[in-house]
Amino acid sequence: MAGDYGVDPDQIVGYAFEPLAIRYTERDASLYALGVGAPADPLDQDELRFVYELSAAGFRVLPTFAVTFPTRMIDTLLSGSLPGLRYNPMLVLHGEQMVEVPRPLPAATVVTARPKVAAVYDKGSGALVVIDVPCYDENEALVALNRSSMFIRGIGGFGGERGPSSETNTPPARPPDAVISERTLPQQALLYRLSGDINPLHADPLMAGLAGFDRPILHGLCTFGYAARAVLRAFCQNDPARFLRMTARFASHVFPGEMLVTEMWHEGERVLLRTSTAERGDPVLTHAAVDLQ
Amino acid sequence: MAGDYGVDPDQIVGYAFEPLAIRYTERDASLYALGVGAPADPLDQDELRFVYELSAAGFRVLPTFAVTFPTRMIDTLLSGSLPGLRYNPMLVLHGEQMVEVPRPLPAATVVTARPKVAAVYDKGSGALVVIDVPCYDENEALVALNRSSMFIRGIGGFGGERGPSSETNTPPARPPDAVISERTLPQQALLYRLSGDINPLHADPLMAGLAGFDRPILHGLCTFGYAARAVLRAFCQNDPARFLRMTARFASHVFPGEMLVTEMWHEGERVLLRTSTAERGDPVLTHAAVDLQ
Repeated sequence: MAGDYGVDPDQIVGYAFEPLAIRYTERDASLYALGVGAPADPLDQDELRFVYELSAAGFRVLPTFAVTFPTRMIDTLLSGSLPGLRYNPMLVLHGEQMVEVPRPLPAATVVTARPKVAAVYDKGSGALVVIDVPCYDENEALVALNRSSMFIRGIGGFGGERGPSSETNTPPARPPDAVISERTLPQQALLYRLSGDINPLHADPLMAGLAGFDRPILHGLCTFGYAARAVLRAFCQNDPARFLRMTARFASHVFPGEMLVTEMWHEGERVLLRTSTAERGDPVLTHAAVDLQ
Repeated sequence: MAGDYGVDPDQIVGYAFEPLAIRYTERDASLYALGVGAPADPLDQDELRFVYELSAAGFRVLPTFAVTFPTRMIDTLLSGSLPGLRYNPMLVLHGEQMVEVPRPLPAATVVTARPKVAAVYDKGSGALVVIDVPCYDENEALVALNRSSMFIRGIGGFGGERGPSSETNTPPARPPDAVISERTLPQQALLYRLSGDINPLHADPLMAGLAGFDRPILHGLCTFGYAARAVLRAFCQNDPARFLRMTARFASHVFPGEMLVTEMWHEGERVLLRTSTAERGDPVLTHAAVDLQ
């Protein structure tokens, strides 16, 4: 590893971040649910269960709430230096996200997240850093597993492996089995950021301008939550026990206030999906799937 | 005091509740601001300051955030028994609210609220219980003073004083000097309740039905926050330092999703105001005023 920026795979692969303790309650889980658009209809008990602790349908935590557990790990990553990895933090992109929730999340608990660098791939134009974040309860039982793939521009060509093909989870050619459209609020990113990701890109018109956007953009993980809710509604009767794992690639940005259109294809115990904006038609989540159980 | 229900003014007046400790941060203040509809325009720095801790205009806490400090005192009141006051908690109505904020609220602090029964008036059909809640910082300096007037049906006629006339803060006959209309969200009450008032009346279609409403109603103090924002925008350039005191009566209910229309009359250092729904035209906040400083 030479110069200011670079990758030393021997040093970075296996690197363990400081463990993170996360304490949450029904209030935090409800705030997250409102941040990703639940309930679409406040009079419908099906989704009211995600925001109302005494819901007649029984309170449930949205499974994708688990993606918020390692938020402070992302902060460390954006601070710009890890052993064997020197990079410009302005050039870090959240490329893909996987979250697996083996059992429904408790309404309130304490979780310990243990982030670790699982792999670094050489994509030529940059490095793809894969971080696994298993999250445990107080009995050291696995509550959730997150896998975040971060693409760092400018530090490719270090002679590493290219990694597995990324052409996964391609929807079939037939029309979708279900489509759910939901309009986000102009204030959606301001609400979502209260769940922990306070990156100014999602709130500050000036910072968004510096990053090349006309205005602040929605968090990719907020769109991820909308898409998960679409699958929960269309194929799980809003029962998180049916929802095992979701993975998606962040293909483009969303402006708060835009309408998200999620197309879904049911294939056995999997749902393949794709989310686009109604306004611009751009796919924003691609290579996406939910594994049911 | 005879029978199951009744009032003994000698016992209840002066009664001090347990002090309440409230710790809040920018996140709580921002959540409250989103709960009362700020920012109307997320690209406008004027109101972005109430929800974004690094705002170019400088982060500020909405002055009416202080009404949330004694929320747990209201819980005690709704539990149904105080010394010298026995009543049916289903018959308690929040009649009026006053909040005074001598200096802008800090972005994050610890506050101690010391609720005390200031007066009990005999209104014939019920008792009007006035509770003062001074709130202090860690140096015992006054941060805010709340005054909540609770009307309890069914326990009037105990021979007490009738109290001061309630015909205060009547707007002048001329057309208003400013009018601000804002649509609430169908999810507004679900968002506002995360600031502490989790009464099921504002979330649960079944409980709302038992109380005689077609669907859950908005918190009166949520409407109060919208009205305060209207005055801040119209007459204070969104500077909380200009906003000393607000008082209002809760005249009728609002359904989440309705549009709130606040009419304002500027009279010297006071703004008289009235808030109605656009849909039904009913005044929902009356006898209302903000004192500027």
